[in-house]
Amino acid sequence: MLTRIDHVGIACRNLIATAEFYEATFGLTVVSRETNSEQGVREAMLVVGDAAAATSYVQLLEPLGPDTPVGRFLQRRGEGIHHVGYAVGDIEAALASIGATGVRLLDARPRHGSMGASIAFLHPADVGGVLTELVQPAGR
Amino acid sequence: MLTRIDHVGIACRNLIATAEFYEATFGLTVVSRETNSEQGVREAMLVVGDAAAATSYVQLLEPLGPDTPVGRFLQRRGEGIHHVGYAVGDIEAALASIGATGVRLLDARPRHGSMGASIAFLHPADVGGVLTELVQPAGR
Repeated sequence: MLTRIDHVGIACRNLIATAEFYEATFGLTVVSRETNSEQGVREAMLVVGDAAAATSYVQLLEPLGPDTPVGRFLQRRGEGIHHVGYAVGDIEAALASIGATGVRLLDARPRHGSMGASIAFLHPADVGGVLTELVQPAGR
Repeated sequence: MLTRIDHVGIACRNLIATAEFYEATFGLTVVSRETNSEQGVREAMLVVGDAAAATSYVQLLEPLGPDTPVGRFLQRRGEGIHHVGYAVGDIEAALASIGATGVRLLDARPRHGSMGASIAFLHPADVGGVLTELVQPAGR
């Protein structure tokens, strides 16, 4: 069902500075920047490894305000890893299968995610404390 | 420098139950189980996607006792994502390069990691709150 680790989502206070840090320290490259007002974040996607192969990303997230999911995360836990996103081939089928096991879906239907993907989050309390995202990349 | 996301490390209280959950819910498969007494953990590696391709793992970590890094993490933050591990081709070169930028190395020299890999951790305070591991897989 899960085809790869699509991304690790990292909460930060300053998106520009943190992206520059990842570029300078680890040689990563920002391939997409966007604002997702529905999710209350400004974000940057940095590709890890060969962009032509099955690609994984570091997703840096800066909240648009304190009263957003990432804003509250920063207040509660500080900067750090916020969630993990796994790629799936068919997000509707994956949600149906996972929902049937009893895991609560934060998004019963897919929403708009980074780079045109369809995404949905699972309830972290049902996944061992891990905020888990399913990602069906665009164009699949 | 970073060639892929090698794994996401997840702290849990019950390794057997958590591995069974990931198998049942997400269809993942445990490909390795080991105890690393140097790091104070019992662990399971579950492969994400095609094991023949550039592989990523979910690494489940159960502490061997409360006075271990993962044991203290569980007391402080509860179950959840503990760290992210990136694959590198040459861990000695990567540590030299990253150390030269001023990021503190928790391991100045590589240590023994999962499945025969050479690994080293970077100081989370210097990486935006993210406990970051470099992984040179075995046999490279």
